[in-house]
Amino acid sequence: MRMYDIIRKKRDGGRLSRDEIRFFTEGYVRGDIPDYQAAALCMAIYFRGMDSDETAELTYAIRDSGDKLDLSGIDGIRADKHSTGGVGDKTSLIVAPIVATFGVRVAKVSGRGLGHTGGTIDKLESIPGFRTDLSEKEFAECVRKAGVAIIGQTGEMAPADRLLYALRDVTATVDSLPLIVSSIMGKKLAADDDVIVLDVKNGSGSFNRTFDDSLTLARAMVDIGKKAGKKIMAFITDMDRPLGNEIGNSLEVIEAFETLKGRGPADLHALCVTLAGRMLSLSGLGTPAECEKMADRAIKDGSALETFGKNDLGTGRRSSRNIRLLSVPEGASGP
Amino acid sequence: MRMYDIIRKKRDGGRLSRDEIRFFTEGYVRGDIPDYQAAALCMAIYFRGMDSDETAELTYAIRDSGDKLDLSGIDGIRADKHSTGGVGDKTSLIVAPIVATFGVRVAKVSGRGLGHTGGTIDKLESIPGFRTDLSEKEFAECVRKAGVAIIGQTGEMAPADRLLYALRDVTATVDSLPLIVSSIMGKKLAADDDVIVLDVKNGSGSFNRTFDDSLTLARAMVDIGKKAGKKIMAFITDMDRPLGNEIGNSLEVIEAFETLKGRGPADLHALCVTLAGRMLSLSGLGTPAECEKMADRAIKDGSALETFGKNDLGTGRRSSRNIRLLSVPEGASGP
Repeated sequence: MRMYDIIRKKRDGGRLSRDEIRFFTEGYVRGDIPDYQAAALCMAIYFRGMDSDETAELTYAIRDSGDKLDLSGIDGIRADKHSTGGVGDKTSLIVAPIVATFGVRVAKVSGRGLGHTGGTIDKLESIPGFRTDLSEKEFAECVRKAGVAIIGQTGEMAPADRLLYALRDVTATVDSLPLIVSSIMGKKLAADDDVIVLDVKNGSGSFNRTFDDSLTLARAMVDIGKKAGKKIMAFITDMDRPLGNEIGNSLEVIEAFETLKGRGPADLHALCVTLAGRMLSLSGLGTPAECEKMADRAIKDGSALETFGKNDLGTGRRSSRNIRLLSVPEGASGP
Repeated sequence: MRMYDIIRKKRDGGRLSRDEIRFFTEGYVRGDIPDYQAAALCMAIYFRGMDSDETAELTYAIRDSGDKLDLSGIDGIRADKHSTGGVGDKTSLIVAPIVATFGVRVAKVSGRGLGHTGGTIDKLESIPGFRTDLSEKEFAECVRKAGVAIIGQTGEMAPADRLLYALRDVTATVDSLPLIVSSIMGKKLAADDDVIVLDVKNGSGSFNRTFDDSLTLARAMVDIGKKAGKKIMAFITDMDRPLGNEIGNSLEVIEAFETLKGRGPADLHALCVTLAGRMLSLSGLGTPAECEKMADRAIKDGSALETFGKNDLGTGRRSSRNIRLLSVPEGASGP
């Protein structure tokens, strides 16, 4: 098999086989396939697209390109949410503890800022001393203890995506549906959750300007997730204006905690209840309507806030700052 | 200016400006623009094409990317021919001395094999001791003395083409009309001839399988040549079967000399007379019909063969093997 033939096949509108896609991703991660051939293939994919089977195979190849998150020792259903990125989107910080309150595990691997949108990891790191680079063992310990933890993507998970995204970013091949879908879903599947709720942002503040684009992306991602055996669904949510009132890493963290305390802006509160409710519902805890009420109650009775506070690890070290977070919105500058 | 924006503009179907094209070729030759960005641009050009102005600008940028052949000290009109490549095509070895016989200078820079077709330089090098790597000074001396010389492309002439072709060859971006045209014509214009006759091969043994493809290529090349102020025209000639009877470097050299002696196959003889005749006609020596008769006569009376024999340089060194050529078809193994 030759990379040249794979580029040429896609250039001419052909369908890449599972073996051809694996030959490319595995060779690229190993460094056997040079950047210029990968760039030519990405541009050919930009023009020719990929059908749903090809996109699924590329997703699986990205998923399998590195280590998977091994949380097999942790009991219970594991759920995750993913946002395609919008301005002021701090929902992960709110949704994750809500869901964990009800015994559904949230072992979340988040990203950094992409284009003009902030990343959850950047937001968390605005808290002095907060660690997002936990080892897998520490991460599992947090999930076991508190039911929830958020870490940054490591180099060992889905390295094909890390390499490919960096290349696409400088070769004008980011805006390709199958490449976007496989990048997002490859990473998500590597985390091996049971339930995935997607928040596809639509509007001038997002990457998808038109509803049709958002719908196409949402459908493609749900399609892949279902093929991979996940319980998955997508919301298309408004991003014609920022979510909530605050933009900026530390301001967004503060607003997230205000929301967990029941004092958040209405749009942010409503979206978080919707997302958390659907994660709970797909996890088997009730109908969407019932689960949304549960999510709302977890905010109102303080249990979601309490869940986030469980993550001390009982050490008092700088690595245990998750709990200290709680004092930030109270006005304290932290210990 | 950023290479990213240039790739993106072409990807989106935009027209690249002269400045953008120069930014790319000059940066690529300097090594400032990486292969992966050049590969992405080539693939975008493959899909989006280039209009005639863009193709002309890319051609000029390739022409200007390195040294030009400086034969300003040599009097007289300079003519060249170029074949797009076919099986058994040894016309250069015959046409060049015919044209030089009438005082038109042929200072020819030839290529090596491309794909399944042999190159003139490879053919000449099948003669033991024959040098195709003359210095510019030696080359000029040959042209001054005999009116004709053939050398290989040097790294300093049109380096943008050398680099781009090597990249296109491994990224499945060879088959792009504007890239083919600019590659051929960029090199041709760097040689700065007054007259150019193109031999566009058409048929199963060539790169152009259909007559329409050949016609499109021929028109695009003639268009660029005219824009650059050249006297230029193109023939589309049959390549559904090999030209002449012999295939293989040394066999083709022998057949070329047989043809110069008036004993060549009819198809090869006829094509050479046509090409040489048109080069002479565009050089102002008469009508095409008159010039074809002159070319035919130069074979019949032995003057073309004699012209080739003039290129001894009078040294007797191994570098003077051009004249020894003449003994090869006589059966001698050479000194």
